[in-house]
Amino acid sequence: MSISPEQQVDAEQFASRHWFVPHGELRARAAALQACLVAADIDAAVLHGNADILYMTGGLVDGVVVVPATGEPRVLARRAAERVAVETCWDVRRAVSTRELAAELEQVGASRGRIAVALDVLPAAQFLKLAAAVPSAELVALTPHIRSVRAIKSAWELDNMRVAAEQVRDAMVTVARQVVPGHTELDGLRLAEGCMRADGHQGIVRMRRFGGEGGFGTVVAGANAALPGPLDAPLGGSGLYPSVGRGASTRELVAGDLLVLDLMGAANGYLSDCTRVVAVGGIGAIDEDLLAAQEWCVGVLEQVAAHAKPGVAPSALYQLALDLAADAGHADRFMGVAPDQARFVGHGIGMEVDEYPFLTHGFDTPLEAGMVFALEPKLVYPGRAAVGIEDSFVVVENGVMALPALPRDVIDMSW
Amino acid sequence: MSISPEQQVDAEQFASRHWFVPHGELRARAAALQACLVAADIDAAVLHGNADILYMTGGLVDGVVVVPATGEPRVLARRAAERVAVETCWDVRRAVSTRELAAELEQVGASRGRIAVALDVLPAAQFLKLAAAVPSAELVALTPHIRSVRAIKSAWELDNMRVAAEQVRDAMVTVARQVVPGHTELDGLRLAEGCMRADGHQGIVRMRRFGGEGGFGTVVAGANAALPGPLDAPLGGSGLYPSVGRGASTRELVAGDLLVLDLMGAANGYLSDCTRVVAVGGIGAIDEDLLAAQEWCVGVLEQVAAHAKPGVAPSALYQLALDLAADAGHADRFMGVAPDQARFVGHGIGMEVDEYPFLTHGFDTPLEAGMVFALEPKLVYPGRAAVGIEDSFVVVENGVMALPALPRDVIDMSW
Repeated sequence: MSISPEQQVDAEQFASRHWFVPHGELRARAAALQACLVAADIDAAVLHGNADILYMTGGLVDGVVVVPATGEPRVLARRAAERVAVETCWDVRRAVSTRELAAELEQVGASRGRIAVALDVLPAAQFLKLAAAVPSAELVALTPHIRSVRAIKSAWELDNMRVAAEQVRDAMVTVARQVVPGHTELDGLRLAEGCMRADGHQGIVRMRRFGGEGGFGTVVAGANAALPGPLDAPLGGSGLYPSVGRGASTRELVAGDLLVLDLMGAANGYLSDCTRVVAVGGIGAIDEDLLAAQEWCVGVLEQVAAHAKPGVAPSALYQLALDLAADAGHADRFMGVAPDQARFVGHGIGMEVDEYPFLTHGFDTPLEAGMVFALEPKLVYPGRAAVGIEDSFVVVENGVMALPALPRDVIDMSW
Repeated sequence: MSISPEQQVDAEQFASRHWFVPHGELRARAAALQACLVAADIDAAVLHGNADILYMTGGLVDGVVVVPATGEPRVLARRAAERVAVETCWDVRRAVSTRELAAELEQVGASRGRIAVALDVLPAAQFLKLAAAVPSAELVALTPHIRSVRAIKSAWELDNMRVAAEQVRDAMVTVARQVVPGHTELDGLRLAEGCMRADGHQGIVRMRRFGGEGGFGTVVAGANAALPGPLDAPLGGSGLYPSVGRGASTRELVAGDLLVLDLMGAANGYLSDCTRVVAVGGIGAIDEDLLAAQEWCVGVLEQVAAHAKPGVAPSALYQLALDLAADAGHADRFMGVAPDQARFVGHGIGMEVDEYPFLTHGFDTPLEAGMVFALEPKLVYPGRAAVGIEDSFVVVENGVMALPALPRDVIDMSW
């Protein structure tokens, strides 16, 4: 047994690309955040957490980034400071204590002002330590500001997301060609994982929400696709163990199963989210009403996408999908949870899978050009099956454009 | 191309095992935590975060677990309450708001008392909300209590860790047999991932530390193995992208490389951590001093393990390793960071890769039977290579026993 050439990573192609974040990008990101800080009368932001730090520095840091309302951001690293110094354009220095962070905040004139921190990700212990170290400062929320800035993607970011989308496209084709009845859901997931890894999948899928655990995706069929899970996602699945709680099981695929492939590409920090369904044993083996439901989901995706453009509220797009579901008699099956529970028909995506904008009730801040969201109308038939579709769209001047180039038909496994 | 039988998941074998946590286990865990709460004069604990919740309930919950100092724990789930009710022995009810949590704390008589929460994982926003909802309560640290309880593994837990250790053993053999010069580090990692997945790896490796991102492991060779990273780990590696920041790159292996395989198995929630090195191109191709350094690491592992038993302080074991490093002239290479930086020679392991006990300065609480730690003496030669070894050990009555059954020799790729 050996690694076949097609399974092997193309090292040359990989090395030909420069993966560092261009310094112009980093400067534009800092300027955009600083504009928010100034508008909100905030003196400095302290960034914690891998996604926000990666966004601002171009690398991962065991430490924090101080972004004053004016002037250059600076990086305080507990270790490997020399390494992030190569990746970023900002000043980096080694600092290990909250006391040193407080001194830095004093130096940028924020220690008696308003300091923004990401209260949704920063652990309470670190928050309390910081609060004690800058007793004259007011600690305020950074989250809406950094999320709003991150929601608008640059051309460079979109380019990375397209690489991620290509990983998913290859995986969809590979799984559809290779999986046969008798294979398990886990076999399908493993194929997808191996295929995306060979295409340079970074192996990490970040989720901002506390307790969110990303993965390469959800590969589920039949009744398992309809099993609810602990995550805010339309489809659940048993997972391999209670410790996973979602996704692929060792259930064997049988003809007549609709196999749902909800896969996440990840290249150079950026994600792409896409769902297709595979007709196990061929289209003829699938129940007519499920095929009709699948077609309905594709129609909803296309109608909602047709209404999306700058100025439209994400909540209005969600309402449109809800209305379509009610009209079609799908209200109770829509997105897998009862209408009184938290649900959505789409979510922003970028370095994390749960970015702004959310296509849900109450998210009224209008779409802007450069935003990217995954739109995923899905229907759940408890105890039986789930259907659905998902594509990631970038908002452009007059509408939206889908990131992946993949047909939306049911994939016929009788190929 | 199709999935070969040996690459396929053995669904029958998998289904033959009952993966739910036995209710007797759950009751013993609750009783152990409650004993800590009573001793610390705490009225109730509120568990947040996947690992602590999984430990106490046997499943994942989008919600919290309230553990009163006396009486039964109860689970408050935001969604899929019917699902965790199947997995756990505790009362489960749907609750979505902090107000409902406060009412529950009132009901167990804790709302004017001392309530323990995991300040190291709970995000500040949720902490502040809870504090406002129980204004008469004192919120205190749960972390040392829950970590101490979780540090002592039951026979059932050890059984799962052995399954995880078997995944790693299979992957070591597979990688050593299949990787050849010209393959990349990423090829080696992908092989290991696919192999462990086929053996039922859960796909998630949990780390408690804020910002910690687990993975299947670190597969690095030569200079890349010696590159420092942002994590508290002796070896770094560039990773595929700056967004990964550690581990395998697309660097091609050449004869003379020492390929370090630091792999993490994960079965039914439990991890196993193991490191071996592979002599790319055969033992004869490796520099003599590196082979001697590797042999030295194995010797340190065996000497430290020989001193470990109930009653011994983890800090004393760390000091022993430090002394051995100093005697051998390895002080500056030991564990990859300068002596003034945070480092360790071992770490507890279980549902997370960074559990109690830590074999480091200041961790003086003595070992007890049932504790499990990974011991990983490693040496880093900047710009050139890294060497090292790692096994997970369980503390027994008179000493320790290694979990994996795998020779500690350098794996000779000229097989």
